[in-house]
Amino acid sequence: MSKTESGELYWNHRKQEKSTAVRIGIIGCGYWGPNLIRNFHEVAEAEVSAICDLRLDRIEPFLKKIPGVRLTTDPKKVFKDPAIEAVVIATPISTHYGLAGAALRHGKHVLVEKPLAGTVREAEALVRLARRQKKILMVGHTFEYHPAVLKINDLLKSGEIGDIQYIDSIRVNLGLYQFDNRNVVWDLVPHDIAIILGWLNAFPEKVSAWGQSFVKKGVEDVAFLRLQFPGGVLAHLHVSWLAPAKIRRMTLVGNRKMIIYDDLENVEKVKIADQGAHLSSEDPNPRINYRMGDIMSPRIPVTEPLFYECSHFVDCIMNHKKPKTDGEKGLQVVRVLEASDKSIKNHGRWVRI
Amino acid sequence: MSKTESGELYWNHRKQEKSTAVRIGIIGCGYWGPNLIRNFHEVAEAEVSAICDLRLDRIEPFLKKIPGVRLTTDPKKVFKDPAIEAVVIATPISTHYGLAGAALRHGKHVLVEKPLAGTVREAEALVRLARRQKKILMVGHTFEYHPAVLKINDLLKSGEIGDIQYIDSIRVNLGLYQFDNRNVVWDLVPHDIAIILGWLNAFPEKVSAWGQSFVKKGVEDVAFLRLQFPGGVLAHLHVSWLAPAKIRRMTLVGNRKMIIYDDLENVEKVKIADQGAHLSSEDPNPRINYRMGDIMSPRIPVTEPLFYECSHFVDCIMNHKKPKTDGEKGLQVVRVLEASDKSIKNHGRWVRI
Amino acid sequence: MSKTESGELYWNHRKQEKSTAVRIGIIGCGYWGPNLIRNFHEVAEAEVSAICDLRLDRIEPFLKKIPGVRLTTDPKKVFKDPAIEAVVIATPISTHYGLAGAALRHGKHVLVEKPLAGTVREAEALVRLARRQKKILMVGHTFEYHPAVLKINDLLKSGEIGDIQYIDSIRVNLGLYQFDNRNVVWDLVPHDIAIILGWLNAFPEKVSAWGQSFVKKGVEDVAFLRLQFPGGVLAHLHVSWLAPAKIRRMTLVGNRKMIIYDDLENVEKVKIADQGAHLSSEDPNPRINYRMGDIMSPRIPVTEPLFYECSHFVDCIMNHKKPKTDGEKGLQVVRVLEASDKSIKNHGRWVRI
Amino acid sequence: MSKTESGELYWNHRKQEKSTAVRIGIIGCGYWGPNLIRNFHEVAEAEVSAICDLRLDRIEPFLKKIPGVRLTTDPKKVFKDPAIEAVVIATPISTHYGLAGAALRHGKHVLVEKPLAGTVREAEALVRLARRQKKILMVGHTFEYHPAVLKINDLLKSGEIGDIQYIDSIRVNLGLYQFDNRNVVWDLVPHDIAIILGWLNAFPEKVSAWGQSFVKKGVEDVAFLRLQFPGGVLAHLHVSWLAPAKIRRMTLVGNRKMIIYDDLENVEKVKIADQGAHLSSEDPNPRINYRMGDIMSPRIPVTEPLFYECSHFVDCIMNHKKPKTDGEKGLQVVRVLEASDKSIKNHGRWVRI
Repeated sequence: MSKTESGELYWNHRKQEKSTAVRIGIIGCGYWGPNLIRNFHEVAEAEVSAICDLRLDRIEPFLKKIPGVRLTTDPKKVFKDPAIEAVVIATPISTHYGLAGAALRHGKHVLVEKPLAGTVREAEALVRLARRQKKILMVGHTFEYHPAVLKINDLLKSGEIGDIQYIDSIRVNLGLYQFDNRNVVWDLVPHDIAIILGWLNAFPEKVSAWGQSFVKKGVEDVAFLRLQFPGGVLAHLHVSWLAPAKIRRMTLVGNRKMIIYDDLENVEKVKIADQGAHLSSEDPNPRINYRMGDIMSPRIPVTEPLFYECSHFVDCIMNHKKPKTDGEKGLQVVRVLEASDKSIKNHGRWVRI
Repeated sequence: MSKTESGELYWNHRKQEKSTAVRIGIIGCGYWGPNLIRNFHEVAEAEVSAICDLRLDRIEPFLKKIPGVRLTTDPKKVFKDPAIEAVVIATPISTHYGLAGAALRHGKHVLVEKPLAGTVREAEALVRLARRQKKILMVGHTFEYHPAVLKINDLLKSGEIGDIQYIDSIRVNLGLYQFDNRNVVWDLVPHDIAIILGWLNAFPEKVSAWGQSFVKKGVEDVAFLRLQFPGGVLAHLHVSWLAPAKIRRMTLVGNRKMIIYDDLENVEKVKIADQGAHLSSEDPNPRINYRMGDIMSPRIPVTEPLFYECSHFVDCIMNHKKPKTDGEKGLQVVRVLEASDKSIKNHGRWVRI
Repeated sequence: MSKTESGELYWNHRKQEKSTAVRIGIIGCGYWGPNLIRNFHEVAEAEVSAICDLRLDRIEPFLKKIPGVRLTTDPKKVFKDPAIEAVVIATPISTHYGLAGAALRHGKHVLVEKPLAGTVREAEALVRLARRQKKILMVGHTFEYHPAVLKINDLLKSGEIGDIQYIDSIRVNLGLYQFDNRNVVWDLVPHDIAIILGWLNAFPEKVSAWGQSFVKKGVEDVAFLRLQFPGGVLAHLHVSWLAPAKIRRMTLVGNRKMIIYDDLENVEKVKIADQGAHLSSEDPNPRINYRMGDIMSPRIPVTEPLFYECSHFVDCIMNHKKPKTDGEKGLQVVRVLEASDKSIKNHGRWVRI
Repeated sequence: MSKTESGELYWNHRKQEKSTAVRIGIIGCGYWGPNLIRNFHEVAEAEVSAICDLRLDRIEPFLKKIPGVRLTTDPKKVFKDPAIEAVVIATPISTHYGLAGAALRHGKHVLVEKPLAGTVREAEALVRLARRQKKILMVGHTFEYHPAVLKINDLLKSGEIGDIQYIDSIRVNLGLYQFDNRNVVWDLVPHDIAIILGWLNAFPEKVSAWGQSFVKKGVEDVAFLRLQFPGGVLAHLHVSWLAPAKIRRMTLVGNRKMIIYDDLENVEKVKIADQGAHLSSEDPNPRINYRMGDIMSPRIPVTEPLFYECSHFVDCIMNHKKPKTDGEKGLQVVRVLEASDKSIKNHGRWVRI
């Protein structure tokens, strides 16, 4: 039995039951796809109607977990099924544009894994297409649904932290999870950019990035980015696939207080340090005074951000809402990624975004 | 009583006893000076003969701790005292050249706090002067005497780690300890550069640095440096006086194993991770394989590096040895600092060193 | 529609499909039951055929996750279904004996959550019953399937640690997960006892336990246990539902090396310290010499122990194997629990086991 | 030259200069003595006038550090010197009574290292003697001068924590620092008892202790203590010389909030967890509700407790004050130690204190 034949087999084996739930087809079942499948399966108002991947061995186990789910190796089957309202895409970056575009043209709502597309031009085209088709285009910026990230957002809005001066982020580990020759910037930086754009509610003016490929020629596995925001706010990002220990740590320095967000901490993920430095202004030759105060770790709810993301997508479809992480947000992130890549190719030259 | 008068008072109050120990005059008693005084006082073959600082209130407490020590606000008194063989300088950077030069010209051996001088030109002049005077010129690169740094040096030499691919260093905290308008690069980076030059036994070709001043205009309190070494080895440094938590963490990625050196860990300061990534070479379309193995933390002796440094200085004087951290090493570090500062002024442009 | 009617509804709504998989009925869907359901659903050779709980709202969500599963509020329905081969019991302790007994009498294989039963007498009866019925009786001592616990077992067998002198365990957190007035000993201590009996391959001679109830009168929420093993080996356990921070930490002191097992560590769960103390034997007045060496953290596979446990249960059924954590093991643990409870009631008096 | 002769040599080598400072003789220069010497040397109003130890090699190095200090191997020399006002005793426990008694009888104020004496009878005699002699008798309960311990004291007094329900303490490490066959209880427990008596402002009614000797027969190197205070408050202590990692951690569970005090944390030594458990009182069958809130770490000043202790001793002498840790406090601690030892000898039997 060839793969295609087997695909046919799994596709026709039973009729889909009627339901009021949003029927979803999920394309791509590599590293991240199974998490999407599991969470959409948990969302009460959603039904995982079809799963598609080039490799049948990856999707066959879901026959048992989601009896009645249809499997296929051909994404067109998903696009052409009128019962499917929404398509979720978790494939390699370079295929995002083609698959998301086809889904939109077939009248589906679309959730694309981050980043939205492999180039700014493609991302722009998807945003336009979604608008024309009047369909929802959402991007999987999962951290925007993370309770710790949301908590920090609240803190920033409350004024308790003061004006942000700089943000430093370290997102490193051993290993990568994609296979189409994109570098570490395209893999890990989307998280940071989406988070930081949300926190600062601002867009960077320029970027300087520096990367190096150690293991596979031409594919940077280590990179350092400097982002300049309006008003002198800075962000520095360190991403790596070649690090001895996993680190997920972001530091926010405000002129009132400082925040440490360590995503690997079990309990105290967010710490607010009542610390700072100030010039003694009355002094003719001003000195710097440092202030060291208490450290507060607010209670962060323990929830899976991806579940919120999936629920939000379904909610937007059912209630005609604009997603929090819509195509525009996805486009912004791709703009930063493309500019960063360009800077890396130019040995760290500043690139306007 | 004016300060000068009081200085006279403390200078003449008693005769220095004879001894075979190396008599040392210490100039500068701000943040670091007291540590030098305490350690030289502990070195059996040394005698803290005189202490000098512009502020008498800083040095008077030592009358009790080191009975018989002479105090002065005038460094010339130290230089002119024929009984003093060696001078230790722990003053602001901009004064290093003047004070160390004067000491050498008066025939003293000199230990200067890092960095050796405030410019390459000054550092070069000091190296030449020491050579001409046939006196020892040593720089206080304390971490070169740190048992963890030495342990890593042994590991690198043994070949266990393989070839170093990149080094990442974070040296941040809240607060600075100098007051002559030098930026954070001049304060914190000398440690990293001295350590890394020692480990790699190589000199960087170029540097790109990016800094920003938040608290005091024109004095960068946060900086990021990228150093390119021959053979493609990289080092990235993050230094800051504006960080919510103190971090002293260096990561070395070799093509065999990886090392984490966390100086704030009480026990496991050095960890060797038996991890790595390799291309599956036999594959026509090679994939990357990741290896995750054991983590080993070697026993590191608990000792104060500064005591070793002080003992080494005395040993070099008594036995006519070349210091491990001599003027040449100090000059190398200043070359990197000056180039980094230039790069910061040029918004991160690469500067040849 | 009454609960019972609704139960009927869900029970009859469809025929069970034929399959070669072991059909399992799961009774109890409170805190732990859902984990068992999820894992048995993942085991390829198993089929979650029926779920039973007194509260329909707890089990209804599984209709979507496991289409075709039958739901009931009446455990008898599960026992009487001839298609069901095995019953899994995750109910309050006091019901274990009744439910497990009924299941065995109906010819089912049984997996009971720890502890096996609420008294030694009940546990003994279950062991006898299972033997008579020639059915498998297994207890959910999950930690016995934990890769870190297994790794330590290997280390102990290898002789690298030497003879164990004492084991100290801390298992504390805020909150409890059961509701039938059993104290913290019955909730948390089964883990430790199962682990320690496995490691030492020995049974304690006596126990002294001390507990106190702070929140609910008569239900101890904090307890300390001392266990004496043959040959002078000791174990000390601290369990609590009233602790500010979750701790899962076991320390093994051998006469060659020492082990720390911290289950909350993400990576370095197990650390082997090459340390010890020895009498200087040649000395007439012997002194104690302490040795401090390297610390090694072996790579521990990242797997869910419960999945192994569930797979093992199915494997034992299909291949007529004796479970690693069989009724006898469960009985041993209950013996220790009952003796501990007795000691608590007697203010810490030593109780023979 | 015999030891005594050498002692004579060092004793007579120079006249003591006049000063208004309190002249102090320090007896015992093993593990802890040097710390006392260093700190008293730093106290402005004190003068380390004489140091005594049976081993000259231990005290000779102080000739350089404290020029003019007199050295002796004979404590009587210290007692008989009329210029010495106060004697500090840092010798093995069994000598405390003899030395402190002699010092008091010679009219000296006395600071004894903890514990005050080796038996309750001796401790009582010293308290009586000090009262009769109208001299200060102070015990070196250093932790009572620790800013973290004081901070917790403030928190307890403020009512923020509510009523204390239980305290759990772990004080373990590898190695011991005394050599007169006293067990680990006499070495480590005095710290905990002094701290806890201070916090609770109460005295325990009874103790049950369990110890075991692994390395040296008859000298327990591991012990567990249970202390019962009036009103049902409990304290549990774990002390050990045979632990793979150093732990200094105390947990206080109040009925409002909980506190963790980890003395090995560099920054966040004290954490206040806004957590608790409460019975839902309105319920006829009450359930326990758990509350998980923020965690706050107050700023703790970085100071050396021993310096405060030494300063306090001198202050009490100069200003006729009653020491915070006077002989009565020392006697209370000894009462608990003696009772604990008795309980250990009786296999954990409860002993009234």
